[in-house]
This record gives sequence, C-alpha cells and structure tokens, in this order.
Amino acid sequence: MGALRLPSLTSLFATSARSPSLSRRRHHLCLPLRPLSVQSGTPEKEISPELDGLKANQNTRIVDKEKDRVITPRSQDFNAWYLDIISNAELADYGPVRGTMVIRPYGYAIWEAIQEYLNVKFKETGHSNMYFPQFIPYSFIEKEASHVEGFSPELALVTIGGGKELEEKLVVRPTSETIVNHMFTQWIHSYRDLPLMINQWANVTRWEMRTKPFIRTLEFLWQEGHTAHTTLEEAEKEALQMIDVYTKFAYEQAAIPVIAGRKSRVETFAGANRTYTIEAMMGDRKALQAGTSHNLGQNFSQAFGTQFTDENGQRQHVWQTSWAISTRFVGGIIMTHGDDTGLMLPPKLAPVQVVIVPIWKKADERTGVFNATSSVKDTLQAAGIKVKVDDSDQRTPGWKYNFWEMKGVPLRIEIGPRDVSSGTVVISRRDIPGKQGKVFGISMDCSILVAYVKGLLDEIQSCLLERATSFRDCNIVDVSSYDELKEAISQGKWARGPWSARDEDELKIKEETGATIRCFPFEQPQGTKSCLMTGSPAEEVAIFAKSY
Amino acid sequence: MGALRLPSLTSLFATSARSPSLSRRRHHLCLPLRPLSVQSGTPEKEISPELDGLKANQNTRIVDKEKDRVITPRSQDFNAWYLDIISNAELADYGPVRGTMVIRPYGYAIWEAIQEYLNVKFKETGHSNMYFPQFIPYSFIEKEASHVEGFSPELALVTIGGGKELEEKLVVRPTSETIVNHMFTQWIHSYRDLPLMINQWANVTRWEMRTKPFIRTLEFLWQEGHTAHTTLEEAEKEALQMIDVYTKFAYEQAAIPVIAGRKSRVETFAGANRTYTIEAMMGDRKALQAGTSHNLGQNFSQAFGTQFTDENGQRQHVWQTSWAISTRFVGGIIMTHGDDTGLMLPPKLAPVQVVIVPIWKKADERTGVFNATSSVKDTLQAAGIKVKVDDSDQRTPGWKYNFWEMKGVPLRIEIGPRDVSSGTVVISRRDIPGKQGKVFGISMDCSILVAYVKGLLDEIQSCLLERATSFRDCNIVDVSSYDELKEAISQGKWARGPWSARDEDELKIKEETGATIRCFPFEQPQGTKSCLMTGSPAEEVAIFAKSY
Repeated sequence: MGALRLPSLTSLFATSARSPSLSRRRHHLCLPLRPLSVQSGTPEKEISPELDGLKANQNTRIVDKEKDRVITPRSQDFNAWYLDIISNAELADYGPVRGTMVIRPYGYAIWEAIQEYLNVKFKETGHSNMYFPQFIPYSFIEKEASHVEGFSPELALVTIGGGKELEEKLVVRPTSETIVNHMFTQWIHSYRDLPLMINQWANVTRWEMRTKPFIRTLEFLWQEGHTAHTTLEEAEKEALQMIDVYTKFAYEQAAIPVIAGRKSRVETFAGANRTYTIEAMMGDRKALQAGTSHNLGQNFSQAFGTQFTDENGQRQHVWQTSWAISTRFVGGIIMTHGDDTGLMLPPKLAPVQVVIVPIWKKADERTGVFNATSSVKDTLQAAGIKVKVDDSDQRTPGWKYNFWEMKGVPLRIEIGPRDVSSGTVVISRRDIPGKQGKVFGISMDCSILVAYVKGLLDEIQSCLLERATSFRDCNIVDVSSYDELKEAISQGKWARGPWSARDEDELKIKEETGATIRCFPFEQPQGTKSCLMTGSPAEEVAIFAKSY
Repeated sequence: MGALRLPSLTSLFATSARSPSLSRRRHHLCLPLRPLSVQSGTPEKEISPELDGLKANQNTRIVDKEKDRVITPRSQDFNAWYLDIISNAELADYGPVRGTMVIRPYGYAIWEAIQEYLNVKFKETGHSNMYFPQFIPYSFIEKEASHVEGFSPELALVTIGGGKELEEKLVVRPTSETIVNHMFTQWIHSYRDLPLMINQWANVTRWEMRTKPFIRTLEFLWQEGHTAHTTLEEAEKEALQMIDVYTKFAYEQAAIPVIAGRKSRVETFAGANRTYTIEAMMGDRKALQAGTSHNLGQNFSQAFGTQFTDENGQRQHVWQTSWAISTRFVGGIIMTHGDDTGLMLPPKLAPVQVVIVPIWKKADERTGVFNATSSVKDTLQAAGIKVKVDDSDQRTPGWKYNFWEMKGVPLRIEIGPRDVSSGTVVISRRDIPGKQGKVFGISMDCSILVAYVKGLLDEIQSCLLERATSFRDCNIVDVSSYDELKEAISQGKWARGPWSARDEDELKIKEETGATIRCFPFEQPQGTKSCLMTGSPAEEVAIFAKSY
C-alpha cells in the first residue's frame, strides 16, 4: 500500500511543521514554491486593477516570467505530481498535527459542490439531516465485536476534560454506528417509527499511520447515512439504493467511471454483513475505494438492543444500513483527471467553470476590453455559469493561462482589442491542449455565447468521462489463472477473474502481489466460470488491484 | 448564571444516560412522555394512509385523546418549559456523554435554515469557506496570554492516539484563532495576500460544567469567520460589518430584536481588543449573547508572527478579526417566540411553513378531500412554500392541530368535505390562538391562495418581531443610580444607564445583583450623562442584565 510512496515525502508529511524553519525546509526539499502574488486563500477576491496598478509601481516582487511553479511530471513520480498539484492549486495544506490537513478555499469549494449534489439526493430519497455528538463513551465501541476489532487500533481518545482526568475515556468518533444505535434505541418503539432514515455531515477521526492529503488523513470530512428498517429486505434495498446514488454521482458529476460491486468478506466493513463499494481507477491505475454502503444486518441492533414492536406485537431487532462518502473523493477527482499541466476539473463540480482573461497593451485599449469582459461575465453569470475574471495587471496573459489551466478551470475566454471590434471572443478548452482546443470568433451575442459555453461545458464533462472510461477499460485484464493475475498486477493493471476460493487464498494474493479484491462487480459476464485459483465452479468474477 | 436552573433538572442533564433504566427514570421524573406514535426522528416521512389504516386495526397503541404531551407553563417554570419544548417538538435529545446533545432532524432543519442564509451573506461580503483541523497542539493555546487564561479551564484533551500516549497533548478546538494564525503565517507574505477572509462551519468543544441544550453544550456547531488585514481601520470595519450581518439576520430572519453593541472590557473575548455582540431578550427576560464579532488587533499575529511586507517593503503584523454564531441561536429562537402551546417559529426559518390537515369522516368523502389536499400542496410547493401534509388516519384533526402548533408551524390549512365543495380552505395562524387567528373561505384558486399564504407568512414574520420588540422595550428600564439598577434587576428586567466606572465596579454589580454589562449599545441617547455608579461624566449608557 505504501510501496509507491517515496520515503522522503511520507516522512515529510508525517513531520510536524510547527517550527517555521522546518516548514520552510519542507518546501525547499520537495514542495514547489507558491506563485508569489497569487491571492492565497481568497480565489474569489477581485483586486481593482486601478488600485493594483498603483501598488505595482512600489512593489519589487512582481514576477513576470511565464512559469514560477513546478509540477513533477505524472509519469515520473505520480505521488510527487499529486502533492505538487495540491500545493500549487492551493487545494490543501498540512496541518500542524501529523497527518492532519487544512482544506483551503479552492479545495473546499469542490467539496461544497459534492455536498450540494448529494444533500439534495439524500433528501429526495427520504433522509433527514441531523447531528450526533462526536464524543463516544469507550464502552460503546466495545459492544460490537468486529467493530471494536476494526477500529480500536486507530482511535483518538480524550482522557482529560476541564482539567480533570475523565472516569471513562471518550472516543473521538471514527464513525457513528455505536452512538447512532444508542440513540435509535431510545427513539424506536414500534414499526410505526420505521424506517428511520438519517444522515449527518461531520468530521471523523482515525489515527492513521500513513497519511496522504485527501486520501487518508487523521481527520476528514464526510457524510454518514444511518437507517433502520423492519426487514432485512428493506435494509438490503436501502444499501443498494445508496450505492446507486453514489454511482450516479461519480459518473454524472465527477466524470469518474467507478465500478460498483460487493466487497469480499475479507474487505467488508467492521460490523457489516455486506459492504457495497464504488471503486475508481486512478491515473497510476491504483484503485480508490470512493464510497461504501453497508448492510449492517442486526449486528448493531443486537449489540445495543435496538428493538421495535412489530405488527403482531412481537419485539424484533431492527435491520440497518450505513453509507458514506468523504473528502477522499476530492483526491479521487485529482488523480482521475489531472495531467502534467495540473488539475482538470469536471465542469459540474468546478468552483470556476469559465475564467475570462482580458488582453490589452495600450491604455486606450483597456477600457474597451474591460467593458467587453465585464459584459461577457455578466451574461454568463446570469445564465448560472460560474465565472471568474482575472484582470490583474501584475501578470502576463500567458502566465494567467498557465495558472488557470493548472487550477483545472474547464474553459478560458480571451478578450482582446481585436475581439472587441469584431464582437467575438476566443474560447480554449482545458481538456484539449493548444490550438486544437481553441476556437476563435465566437459571437459575444448573449444567446449565442451562453448556448455555446453551456454546450462546451457539457461536451467537456462527457469527454472527461469517456477518456477515464477508456483508460479504465484498457487497464482491466480478464484473467483465468493465478499466473495471469500476477502478470496483470505486476504490469500495474487491474485483474478481473472468476473467484470462489477461500478467504485465506485472497489474503495470500494480497501478500504475494499487493493486490486485494476490490469488488465483485454488479455487472457480471454470462456463462459458467471456473475459479482462477482453484478451478472449482465460480458464480462471479472479482476485480483484483492494488489500492490506496 | 445557574440561579434559575432547578437542581434536579441540571443534575439530570449532567447525568450519563447510558443505562436504559436511568434514561427511563429521567423521563418519569421530569421529561414529558413523547407522543406515542409520532414519527420520531423522521418528520418528513409520509405514511401512506391506506397502509396505515390496515396496520391500525392490528395495533393496540393508538392514542386518540387530544393531548398526550405535557408542557410545563412558561410562567410556572421557564427552564422546565424550555426542556419540554425541546423534547416534545423533537428538536434535540441528550447524548450519552454528560453535557452533549443530539440535534434531531427538526432542530437541525432550523440550523440548516440559519446556515443557508448566513452562508450566502458571508460569500457576498467576500469570505471563502474552508476547513481547519480540530486538533490543535497544546502549545498553540499557550501562545496568546489572555486566550490561554480564558480557555484552558474548559479544554478537552486528546492524550492517546492509535493506542499510544502522545508526546504533546492535543486540544480539541474550543475556537480556532491559534491554528488559523499558524496557517495564516504560512500563507501571508505581502500586502497583496491581504485581506485574507475565510469562514468555517465546524464543531467546537468546551468543557462546560453547567450545560443546557442548544444554549451551552460540551460540543456545539457554529461558524467561525477569521480575517487578516493590513490596517487596524480595515479590521475594525470588518468586525463591524459582520456584527451588522448578524444583526440583520436576527431581525429579518429570526424576528429577534437584538441589541447590538460593544462589550465591556471585562466581557471582551479572551484575546480580542474589542468584542461586538448582539444581545437578545429571552421570554424570561434573561439576556442571551446570540453572536459576537471580535477585533483581535495584533494580539494573535504577534503571538504567532503573522506578518506581511507592506508597500514600502517593511514587515508588519496583520490586523485580525473573528466572528461566530452557533447552534445556541436555535435556543434563542425557542426562548424568544415560544409560548405555553409550544414552539413558535418565524416563517423565514421554519422547516415547515404550512401544514395541511385534511378532514373527513365517511369513506366517500376521503377521495375528494385527499385530491384537494394534494392539489393545494402542489400549488404551494410550486410557489416555494415549505408544506407538509398530515394525512395519517391514526389521529384526530384536533390532535394534529395541537401537535403542529406545538411544533411551531406558522400556518395550518384545514380542508374538509364542505371546503371541497366550495373550493375554499380554512387557514389558522399559529401566532394568534383560537378563532381570532382563523380565516374561512379562502379560495383554492392558485393565484389567490398563494398570494394569501405568502402575505400571511410575511405578516406573521412581522408580528413576531413586533411582539418581541415591544416585550423587550417594556422590560428595559432607564436607571440613573445603582439603587435603581438593583431595583430593575431584582424585577427581572434589563437596566440601561450611563456608565464610566471601573472594571471592579462592574464585577461588584455582578456579585451583588447577578447582572453583567451586556453591551454598550451602538444606539446611544443624546446629551450629557453621569455614571450611575460614580456620578462622573459618562459618554455612554450600558445595558445590565442577568444572562444565559
């Protein structure tokens, strides 16, 4: 799992950056310098060009060269590339405590777009938001046997409160099944109280030893859904419904062609009977578990005594589910679509969908260009498109092109004096580099421009999904023997093959190849199959891959 | 501060409810029973009446009496009344750890409405959302002298992570100034990086000894804004801007006529130069500090070395602000507008603005009534009004009226067979009880009904504000001597009088009367004034009151 991580980077991320000298050293060693006068932390801010022009005369730190950022090529070192993008695009930064992360405005805006979409879907499917306390009595965690086994190694514990040693240690929630069940037990009386379907947006803490921004951090943000039902069938239907919501979100919003399926017993969530997952192929072909939905059966309801009186007056334990997507998904977007130029954001989740760069040289050109820019901005904004104007005169247009490409903005509109006279603009696509992605002479006329931009954004959204899908499909190999599986994994690919062997065989594969069963995909080939390991009949194919 | 709290209630809330017997005992002792088949935790859920009718025949727990809830009269015991409302309206529940609170869907929906409004205002005023880790190295808290003094008694500390004792204890954030400054120091280089204006929606932890749902809990939800500026003047302007955002929110959305002003030195935030506040008068005439905005000066920037290079190339410390509103505000809404019937929600923040209760007796009336109900619901929903239909046949209309009045829904629409034939509805206002608040024969015609309902919602919003304003104004007494002040406070009122005395005098008043200076209001009377305590000239009047 940590095999691809360079020791230097890992240990740097693991180092506290409390002293400024250390923090500076870290930057010198491996992280690229920040562009000097980029508006750190406030991408929405717009500096008045007049004021800025004044200031510029007195400022000695103006950088006018085209590039002052360095992004390690993806092919050279995928992990370094990933960290460079996070740093250069100002998505996140290291927190002072080992393994923690500060999500910066541009990164947080992507998370907000994810929240906005999912929050609506959760409500449409009958869930209500609420909030549970994050401190859980330690004894709760111990109640469900496999849950405590899975989570106890990575707990953060509060032992002192208000200056006093606590009688019982408190767990900072790693997930909330236990406290949810404690409360459900008080709220659920009869079948009339069911189904009980809730969700919370919250922070959770897991004391991970190997961390990586967005992908695995000590604290992360997520939503966790929790439901209770009268029957197993209803819980199963709910678990499937929610993995379906996640799948649609991944395809339609994030342009990530995840493979949805069921986890193997070995990889099932601690406390669940079944775990459904969406697995995404990153640019280095490692798998990312991007969302999960669990059928918890009666495991927690039995541990916590969560019962209801059924229609016949009998007491029964409820059947439950839980499901979650986290800020990890932001990492998945970076590693699915990014390239050597930087981030590439799917239009539907991009905080800025269109950046407008006005171009002028002489003072008398400026007014015309700025008026046109402002009118184009208003036109697009009124049509619900997220627009940003970069009219600072601190930077050349070339520098700005590179900067906003690095930030992954799907479309760039350039407006110069000649465009103003012809009443047109130049539009460049982030996903198609150079002249091929550039169209000249698009009319500024409101209805034409809006339709054209919307059409392009849709096209980019589709293109990103198509590209990722064909990348994924080129890198999944159908295998029918363990040798073929090993060969595929050693080439860095995913192996798909029939599987009906024992848990021990699965663990052996992990040990010998580093790959695990990512899932038994919902979409299964027809026909009879023989297990790649044992040759015995197998009902399903499984996907094996190295993963984050 | 704890004077009005009954010992029994306080200690009960302070007791862990981990064992079911304890939890049950608590209910028997002081908390009202929950209505038996009310849809706990899923107010949005709609049970199909057909299915429910079937179930009803087999169910023995149907309660058909008009009242099965008890709300202690406000005048009898304000605190018990408050807890009864929170329990009956299913706003919140006790968490398993002493002093923690579970925010239930109906309570959380009020918080979501608060978030929705403020989040837009924060962005409009140039702030970006982001997220800081909640674990702060203990050494950070010690860096700002008055900050550590203010917060160290109420810290929760993580001392064990991943099974190991930590080298440095971690503070679970009580507020984020320290970690924010640690990061700002890395992001701010020159005046070009300023102003830096961010906000985060987060949970915070303060180890309070005396807790009360929403008002003061170990963990609560809030937003905290943090900004850095080049000048004192700019920081001051920002601090004032944000208290103004809060003031408008309180008046226009929550219908709470807060008094905005400046805190006394004694009451200023630990680490701030100036604290601005909005103070609200609750139904028991105690003051609630409902939001604060701090001008932090250079206190944190000096402690953390947060510097920028100014236009002349000189290094300077940044000037900062922070400002926050929390889930405490939900408590403020309950205690401002609620009455003996239950909650009363301002229409602009109500999760349900209109509840429709269909009324029928014979089976042949049902279809007509249900069709009309459904069409009225669609009409109102399409107009952006938040509507809920209560068509369960488990309960009588009378029971439903009481229930939704208790939940504080601003308007109720009744539709019976006679209304169907006349194409009209009956509308009842929550804020005007009985026949006086009831209007018959409002046309179901789409345009008429929508305009009527919207007009009524606006009127209720204004009426709640007017009522609260006149209550407030009747309970503020202008005083010119300490004797008059004592008299006003002993009557439970707020005292407003000229003040220029020493901090020691202020503390003496607190000791002798229980009242503190809530603020020096922005709105000040004209003319020369003499300090109520010393007789010396005073520039301002202050407001004194007992507070939560």
